[in-house]
Amino acid sequence: MPSLIHSTPEADGFRMPAEWEAHAACWMLWPQRPDTWRNGGKPAQRAFVEVAQQISRFEQVTMGVNGDQYENARAMLPAEVRVVELSNNDAWMRDCGTTFVVNDKGDLRGVDWIFNAWGGLKKMMYFPWDKDDLVPAKMLEIESLDRYKAPLVMEGGSIHVDGQGTLITTEQCLLHPNRNPELTRGEIEKHLSDYLKIEKIIWLPRGVYEDETDGHIDNLCCFVRRGVVAMTWTEDKADPQYERSAEAYDALMSARDARGRPLEVHKIHQPDPMTMTQEEAEGLDVVDTAFLRPAGERLAGSYINFYIANGGIILPQFNDRHDEGARRKLAELFPQHKVVGLYSREILLGGGNIHCITQQQPAGRA
Amino acid sequence: MPSLIHSTPEADGFRMPAEWEAHAACWMLWPQRPDTWRNGGKPAQRAFVEVAQQISRFEQVTMGVNGDQYENARAMLPAEVRVVELSNNDAWMRDCGTTFVVNDKGDLRGVDWIFNAWGGLKKMMYFPWDKDDLVPAKMLEIESLDRYKAPLVMEGGSIHVDGQGTLITTEQCLLHPNRNPELTRGEIEKHLSDYLKIEKIIWLPRGVYEDETDGHIDNLCCFVRRGVVAMTWTEDKADPQYERSAEAYDALMSARDARGRPLEVHKIHQPDPMTMTQEEAEGLDVVDTAFLRPAGERLAGSYINFYIANGGIILPQFNDRHDEGARRKLAELFPQHKVVGLYSREILLGGGNIHCITQQQPAGRA
Repeated sequence: MPSLIHSTPEADGFRMPAEWEAHAACWMLWPQRPDTWRNGGKPAQRAFVEVAQQISRFEQVTMGVNGDQYENARAMLPAEVRVVELSNNDAWMRDCGTTFVVNDKGDLRGVDWIFNAWGGLKKMMYFPWDKDDLVPAKMLEIESLDRYKAPLVMEGGSIHVDGQGTLITTEQCLLHPNRNPELTRGEIEKHLSDYLKIEKIIWLPRGVYEDETDGHIDNLCCFVRRGVVAMTWTEDKADPQYERSAEAYDALMSARDARGRPLEVHKIHQPDPMTMTQEEAEGLDVVDTAFLRPAGERLAGSYINFYIANGGIILPQFNDRHDEGARRKLAELFPQHKVVGLYSREILLGGGNIHCITQQQPAGRA
Repeated sequence: MPSLIHSTPEADGFRMPAEWEAHAACWMLWPQRPDTWRNGGKPAQRAFVEVAQQISRFEQVTMGVNGDQYENARAMLPAEVRVVELSNNDAWMRDCGTTFVVNDKGDLRGVDWIFNAWGGLKKMMYFPWDKDDLVPAKMLEIESLDRYKAPLVMEGGSIHVDGQGTLITTEQCLLHPNRNPELTRGEIEKHLSDYLKIEKIIWLPRGVYEDETDGHIDNLCCFVRRGVVAMTWTEDKADPQYERSAEAYDALMSARDARGRPLEVHKIHQPDPMTMTQEEAEGLDVVDTAFLRPAGERLAGSYINFYIANGGIILPQFNDRHDEGARRKLAELFPQHKVVGLYSREILLGGGNIHCITQQQPAGRA
């Protein structure tokens, strides 16, 4: 029943909806690999269970899991979470998962990008990444939905859209030579336009300092609603993040969206700089072909890496003096949503946060 | 969403429908293990593709596959077959899969029997069988359907039902000490009644000669419609099958179904005795903990091991002089169905046939 479609979403009238549009479900992957997740993945698994449980209050969650962790995941997760086998190399559903697109009739399809583990053989985070690259096709097969194969190396975390033709990304990531060195900026823009139905791309220069993903937008800045964005900020001019946030702010203030509107920009102060402890680093396996996470390394903490569920915001918390301010600010920005703060350091230790481990499936035809 | 239910189908008003009642889909598992399937499974995989393709003409087919065979199965199967990861130890979906039950409103649930690879540690066909035993839970999770866990070692191939309270099985199989040695015949009957909503069990003595399953009913005899059964037969009194078929015939002729009706019994002549060739046996891996299939061994060929799809009969064929008679007889017995004969020796070499590798999912609420 599901088929590979050889046209493009744009040509067929399919667009990527904004994250705040109604969801049918949320997809996640179960954390397991002991070179990413300390202590055999057990602390991260408990954190993912909490994320899944909280999102389940607002929408159906499906957890994809390698066969050898099926029973453990099923036992740790609440009954309302659907657990399916979905072989993977790591747990970053935002980045390796399908990007769903919809048309005006409510039909649903998926875009299957090329995944190269954030850098291919030049700078991959781990090797191999073959199972991650098959995740979109398998998700769509389970749901009996058609699939577009996009000829672009891309991760879901490197884009945010307003659902009305505007996309934000960073030059640091999408123009990085480790992804599509043979493509020009114009060709990359054409692919984003063809596969997500985008008319206007707002390029910010760089992402968050020390972000392992070459500066994914989803840790720096996101749409809150049409014409409104939130971004991570610091008042500390000595922090290397200051310059990055300041230049992004300037770019946003001078940008126009696809409808020609200027953007309203909200700053959310970042947590104080955090580093990996000696004890945390010692819990990690050392693997030659995987990214090394040494003690003392700065963690790319940001409140922007939240997930928008149906009526809920699942927000990273760090036991930091800025946690409460972030919660309050998000509650203002999303007056119709319940803001749920979750202590998520264990996810951050693996190199991402709540947005990086989730992928919304838009509501299709009722 | 899917839950483990702690009552019984009978108590909740759920029954196992007859195979000819409308299906939503058919489930299969992909053959792979080189000690069951010769030449690395390649000939069997082609045979399974043919079965899936033919059933797809009548209803949706889902193929469950181990992760390491996903890409190969996806490439070999036609696009209309849904391929999902479903780890397994071997490909006998009839025996390890869930048995679906329905209620009068069209709600669908699944029964999850205990699977012990046709004999447990005393006479298993292979070791281990842990993945097979998880297949029902995983199928139901994919479909978001509730599950009953039945406290009975049982395979789907050891029962046939008429959907109106009658079940046929063999004493050889269901009373075999390798399955439920601690249960009496009465206790086994109670479990079948509780989990399938059965009022009358017709016990036949033995199954087909040299059937590896301790005489599964689905190779010997099946319901064709209410009050009517078909059974495998031979006119050769020197064949060890003669006595088995004759005693089954006598038992059937004196039986009454749950409604008190006598049965109309149709004999279908078996194919001539077949044995595994030297070349075929040499294509198998030898594994100490798995059943050995030597050259010269009699194969338990039977035309009864067909699958009833929506409007179609998928019937084993053996390039035998009795093939045409079986096709003709089935066409008479199923005047509303199209009879599709499939040369299925490769499946038989693994120890079963078309019914053994399929599992119908009844149509639920429209």
